[in-house]
Amino acid sequence: MKNKKETIAIDMDGVLADVEVQMINWYYKDYGVLISREAMIGRPEPEAFPNQDAVWNYLNTPGFFRTLPVMPNAVEVVKELMDHFEIYIVTAAMEFPLSLFEKYEWLQEHFPFISWKNIIMCGDKSIIHTDYLIDDHCKNLDFCKGRPIMFNAGHNSTIDRHERVNTWDEVKVLFDNIRKLDKSAVASLD
Amino acid sequence: MKNKKETIAIDMDGVLADVEVQMINWYYKDYGVLISREAMIGRPEPEAFPNQDAVWNYLNTPGFFRTLPVMPNAVEVVKELMDHFEIYIVTAAMEFPLSLFEKYEWLQEHFPFISWKNIIMCGDKSIIHTDYLIDDHCKNLDFCKGRPIMFNAGHNSTIDRHERVNTWDEVKVLFDNIRKLDKSAVASLD
Repeated sequence: MKNKKETIAIDMDGVLADVEVQMINWYYKDYGVLISREAMIGRPEPEAFPNQDAVWNYLNTPGFFRTLPVMPNAVEVVKELMDHFEIYIVTAAMEFPLSLFEKYEWLQEHFPFISWKNIIMCGDKSIIHTDYLIDDHCKNLDFCKGRPIMFNAGHNSTIDRHERVNTWDEVKVLFDNIRKLDKSAVASLD
Repeated sequence: MKNKKETIAIDMDGVLADVEVQMINWYYKDYGVLISREAMIGRPEPEAFPNQDAVWNYLNTPGFFRTLPVMPNAVEVVKELMDHFEIYIVTAAMEFPLSLFEKYEWLQEHFPFISWKNIIMCGDKSIIHTDYLIDDHCKNLDFCKGRPIMFNAGHNSTIDRHERVNTWDEVKVLFDNIRKLDKSAVASLD
């Protein structure tokens, strides 16, 4: 048996929090134009919108990160994963410094069971070392020291060099399987 | 020759920023009692003060982290180290969430040459992986994956299980020596 839990780093934007739907909703409210999720496939999020500058500006607008919708089932699955893994929330917040406190408050609201000790706000993630990283960006997954797991998003959906999960239910299945494999490996050593 | 620079993680409070002197000055202003650096030896900072609660409260007071004095020569030595090493600022900010933006602004003021990509605000530092860590706390140094370097502070001065530097000038000398050793190791391979 392992004494220490394996570690999972989980990204916020696009993984725990639904950035796409927030952009779509804010843009619709401001411009009356409804952009589809399909339009966001294969390019950076703002490029799907006629006025890209507006969408880039949202990222620096107070309230944008504080009010992001939670991804379906993220809360339940993260809570369950915590029984078996050490969970760290690792988010690239430094590019948008106004988001620092908003992201902290967002986590307090939706994931109050995650300790402040397990929250990391960073620039690049290259010095983060965990056994697994769940992220939607190749710039993080490519250089990850553990096992990279790509959370599906429009902007990454045409990239196929990482193991992909589409939903939090699929994250649950994946880690259930990892635990089963782990147990049978231990059993075969007994 | 190595292609990639070695990485150094540098702590903020007690290493880049002088927390002791800020506590002493704020306490003197509020209570008219001047506590000496010597009184802070061998115990957590607040315990050197007659009213410990007041000092703990400073850590949650707006402006405390934003106005910390810079350690002597920290700016110059960090700037020089950046020529030879990849520098990351790694600070435990999550325990005092009000400090998040203040710490960001403080770095922008005093270390504007450090990119947002190289700033990490975290809870515990156990998943941070760099070749060196300069820190004043054993709770970080003990579990560091690279080479731990203890920056002297009153609270750690009775602990002797880590290599100690007392000033930023000593940090400079240490890394000059590391680079010399590195060069002679490379030369002996030629």
